[in-house]
Amino acid sequence: MPIITLTTDFGLKDHFVGAIKGHIYSELPEATVVDISHQVSPFDIQECAYLLKNAYKAFPDGSIHIVGVDSEKTAENTHLAIKVDQHFFITADNGVISLITEEISPEKVVEIQLPNAISSAFPVLDVFVKVACHLARGGTLEVIGKPFSNIRSIREITPTVTNGGNTILGSVLYIDNYGNVVTNISKNLFEAYRKGRKFTLEARNKKLTEIHKKYSDIINFDLEKSRRKGAGDLMALFNSSGYIELAIYKSNPNTVGGAATLLGLDYRDTVLINFS
Amino acid sequence: MPIITLTTDFGLKDHFVGAIKGHIYSELPEATVVDISHQVSPFDIQECAYLLKNAYKAFPDGSIHIVGVDSEKTAENTHLAIKVDQHFFITADNGVISLITEEISPEKVVEIQLPNAISSAFPVLDVFVKVACHLARGGTLEVIGKPFSNIRSIREITPTVTNGGNTILGSVLYIDNYGNVVTNISKNLFEAYRKGRKFTLEARNKKLTEIHKKYSDIINFDLEKSRRKGAGDLMALFNSSGYIELAIYKSNPNTVGGAATLLGLDYRDTVLINFS
Amino acid sequence: MPIITLTTDFGLKDHFVGAIKGHIYSELPEATVVDISHQVSPFDIQECAYLLKNAYKAFPDGSIHIVGVDSEKTAENTHLAIKVDQHFFITADNGVISLITEEISPEKVVEIQLPNAISSAFPVLDVFVKVACHLARGGTLEVIGKPFSNIRSIREITPTVTNGGNTILGSVLYIDNYGNVVTNISKNLFEAYRKGRKFTLEARNKKLTEIHKKYSDIINFDLEKSRRKGAGDLMALFNSSGYIELAIYKSNPNTVGGAATLLGLDYRDTVLINFS
Repeated sequence: MPIITLTTDFGLKDHFVGAIKGHIYSELPEATVVDISHQVSPFDIQECAYLLKNAYKAFPDGSIHIVGVDSEKTAENTHLAIKVDQHFFITADNGVISLITEEISPEKVVEIQLPNAISSAFPVLDVFVKVACHLARGGTLEVIGKPFSNIRSIREITPTVTNGGNTILGSVLYIDNYGNVVTNISKNLFEAYRKGRKFTLEARNKKLTEIHKKYSDIINFDLEKSRRKGAGDLMALFNSSGYIELAIYKSNPNTVGGAATLLGLDYRDTVLINFS
Repeated sequence: MPIITLTTDFGLKDHFVGAIKGHIYSELPEATVVDISHQVSPFDIQECAYLLKNAYKAFPDGSIHIVGVDSEKTAENTHLAIKVDQHFFITADNGVISLITEEISPEKVVEIQLPNAISSAFPVLDVFVKVACHLARGGTLEVIGKPFSNIRSIREITPTVTNGGNTILGSVLYIDNYGNVVTNISKNLFEAYRKGRKFTLEARNKKLTEIHKKYSDIINFDLEKSRRKGAGDLMALFNSSGYIELAIYKSNPNTVGGAATLLGLDYRDTVLINFS
Repeated sequence: MPIITLTTDFGLKDHFVGAIKGHIYSELPEATVVDISHQVSPFDIQECAYLLKNAYKAFPDGSIHIVGVDSEKTAENTHLAIKVDQHFFITADNGVISLITEEISPEKVVEIQLPNAISSAFPVLDVFVKVACHLARGGTLEVIGKPFSNIRSIREITPTVTNGGNTILGSVLYIDNYGNVVTNISKNLFEAYRKGRKFTLEARNKKLTEIHKKYSDIINFDLEKSRRKGAGDLMALFNSSGYIELAIYKSNPNTVGGAATLLGLDYRDTVLINFS
């Protein structure tokens, strides 16, 4: 039976996540339900899009991903079930899926229309779980909705290339558990415009000219411990999700602070790359 | 095999939850263990009661619910195993179950008395898990304790009806992940006294005269986006748990604030309804 | 199939934990994956060592424990797979396992050397999960690495006995969800040097002369509620992990404060025991 994953902004204190799992297990006792995150900032589509994009590929083909962020159905926020890249997503049409669908064209999209549907303050339970169980039992998308063609995208999270291909104007996409700052500039985009040139990455008043492969690359282990530099310095690397990330080696945002606090960077702030 | 759920104030950092699951899987390799919440505020019976009541019904009949809040056994806080509404609860007699048992009379209640029981600082592991596994294997309540008849209730969480049925004096029962304020006034109680009349709901210095069905009901989607009202306004709705809730559409307590901070409302503060 | 547990400092907001589980289920659809903790403070070896030591024994023999704290491979932090006490641990050689291996000699230790290994910023996913799945399928340690003999230990977390066996100089090992302060002084060590004598436990400016078995031991339930002492007083007890803990009965660190804030004690602060 396919795995069902949950990505929401419900938090872990309230009873919502437990109730959802209870309903799934009531319908499908053999289900495997996996949490991706329940700590998306409330109604933050961009955060959710980033987490979803980086987690879903780890799951087997055919997995069913429930997305419970800004999911209340309105005249402008309908409910969708989407098949893309061999995975199923059940979500409101709020842009959360667009980081995935802008790279891979969806195979099928339907607007969910359940018989006897009620207008509810908890649509993840009342609608999305029903659809997920239907799909997990091998049901088709056609049965639960009508074709839908115009998925909303969140364009502001795509970087801009200007200055004749010599400048990439990106922004902060995500700040992780270590206070590291993930930009929306992917390794692929960077390399496509770099073409072997030197570059400067600017964030606030900091400039970097190198992008590492892992965090410890900034440390020279040939030196004695007392003579090593880098432990508290800002560095850039291609993170495990394929984006350029600004990080501090072994940072702890609760004590010494992370890259976000060091730079004073927050969501949507600008990160600039100039090739020369 | 029945599902075993966990509702505790252990938090998710400490090893307690992992240890409990390890013990359950050691006894029952095929068990399904589901977290309801581990972030109940320490020793907060009222919060725990609210979460438990709203989560348990989502699980299949026969599910076994371990409640690990204020569970140390004392002369005044004995250990109970309860069958009510086709579900089993294992908890200390601290009132946490009374939101359920005041609506549905329990089928059977026993005071847990295990042979060779040790007096322990971790009774959830040393007692509750043993009882849960016994029940999961199909064991009876009679085997693990003696009949018990006087479950403690937490009466302060029930609203008062005064003024000849014209006033409901309620209070704040829970504040959720979005900063929304859940009152202890159920839809059923409200409708029973409303009898079609107009009403005013008062919380601090705010007055409301309407109760919605879902959060987006406060937005008029027929207007252009720039002319719409409601996005930052206080509203009341019947939440998915059947209680009157004071909410702000798309609030984020970490940034713009939620209803709780807007109103300055905290646990046990008063919420008043006057019918006219 | 053996259980796979996860103990990391990844937090629960990021996609890392979800991605790891997705990879495990992709390889082993029948796996049981259990979270011990993902809220270890970033790069805090001592916290992780304490949580791991106290959780692993709850799991069945043969369980496989992935430790994702400070796991990036460097010249000084190689990757290990260890069999000790009938359990498997997959971790970097950063000392996190030494609370276990200093008590129980490991049966086998190998330095992980996977064919085609990539140098990665996410070694838990790229290396540890592969090793865990190999072991879960019954694979041997010999296949995935070469013998390794010199596990790093973190000696600073062991208490010192001085003054001819009359003084134990310990320190704060962990602060739990209730703000209770766990020392690194085990009951076994304490009793070995106590030999029935009286003692004084000193932490900051507080002195205690008794160590209890459970939290409620400080309350005299024979007295009327209004005349009871102890509810807000500092007490010492042997906690469920076998260490001396400084606690306050029913403390809530978010409201009234816990033992840590009352005492002003933090990680690595001194706790002293004098026998007389």
